[in-house]
Amino acid sequence: MAFINDNYPSKVLQDAVAAIGSLPGVGQRSALRLALHLLGQPKENIHHFASAVDRLADDVRYCNTCMMISDSDTCPICADRSRDHSTVCVVENVRDVMSIEATGQYHGVYHVLGGVISPIDGIGPSDITINQLVGRIASGSVSEVILALPGDVEGETTSFYIYRQIERYGVKVSAPSRGLGFGDDLEYADSLTLGRSILNRQIFKPQ
Amino acid sequence: MAFINDNYPSKVLQDAVAAIGSLPGVGQRSALRLALHLLGQPKENIHHFASAVDRLADDVRYCNTCMMISDSDTCPICADRSRDHSTVCVVENVRDVMSIEATGQYHGVYHVLGGVISPIDGIGPSDITINQLVGRIASGSVSEVILALPGDVEGETTSFYIYRQIERYGVKVSAPSRGLGFGDDLEYADSLTLGRSILNRQIFKPQ
Repeated sequence: MAFINDNYPSKVLQDAVAAIGSLPGVGQRSALRLALHLLGQPKENIHHFASAVDRLADDVRYCNTCMMISDSDTCPICADRSRDHSTVCVVENVRDVMSIEATGQYHGVYHVLGGVISPIDGIGPSDITINQLVGRIASGSVSEVILALPGDVEGETTSFYIYRQIERYGVKVSAPSRGLGFGDDLEYADSLTLGRSILNRQIFKPQ
Repeated sequence: MAFINDNYPSKVLQDAVAAIGSLPGVGQRSALRLALHLLGQPKENIHHFASAVDRLADDVRYCNTCMMISDSDTCPICADRSRDHSTVCVVENVRDVMSIEATGQYHGVYHVLGGVISPIDGIGPSDITINQLVGRIASGSVSEVILALPGDVEGETTSFYIYRQIERYGVKVSAPSRGLGFGDDLEYADSLTLGRSILNRQIFKPQ
């Protein structure tokens, strides 16, 4: 094969493919396809794309209160006086906030941990925003903490760690209900969920 | 919902998601996932990513001879004197070149059209590098042209157009064989391919 540079006819193209291919879930073939798509765009589109990504490095800020990504020191949710600031929903990341906001069912505020405790990945309690959460609760303005963390080992470990840190303040600590999906048939539920939903059965309330 | 800016807590994040989501085959959910992945990287990684993409706009050049993406005015293939410069394989884009090079079976040179004729997309003969191809053939150094274009209507139209432009020069014009895949079972071939492979049957050559 005639190409130097690992089969790419151009080092610039190869570097772009390597950068795009470093994104999670994007293979080398897709990365080449995307790089060639960008290459086929007008130059100003390419500059616009690169600049929009570049600004993630320097222009993103975090809310001083809930640690969510924000354009200012106070995010729109923490700045909203119509929300219930005594109820704090603790989530792993900003995607969780956006998912819960999209339901339109929650009117409290959030606390974004920025991760969960994971010894295998070297992430300890001080690497995420647990101290800031404890500080919010210690200030006395919080009456309920909802631990809306992932249902895996790391998520449960983190929930338990937070629970131990905040139980001394006497706030109510809750978690989202888990069980069969609303409207789901029993036959399609995984057996872990089905079994636990029977054990954790709730009083039937006719609508 | 409390977010201004179309449900994003940050305009910077929203702009990055919009840019990434403009890539073909990348939906809004994936774009958000990728943007948050980048956001979680060290700043220098984000700058490196943005810069690698940005250079596609200004630092990519094209080979003066075959029109392939290149870092210089002559691509490594056209610069390789050990290749057969009298055989020119005409392809749609650089990905086709890379695919053929990866087989290791071809030792001629290429001509990259940069597209195919497509009236629906407003792409005419003068929008792709057909004139440059005709110029190479008119110079008298080419003895065979292989039309390795897509098998769809646009590809066949383009092949036919090129054939009409170059037949006056008396060069051999060929195309890759089409038929059942080598090693394929008949039962898995699509019926168009199977039917045509019977019509275009070739003399059996015992190995």
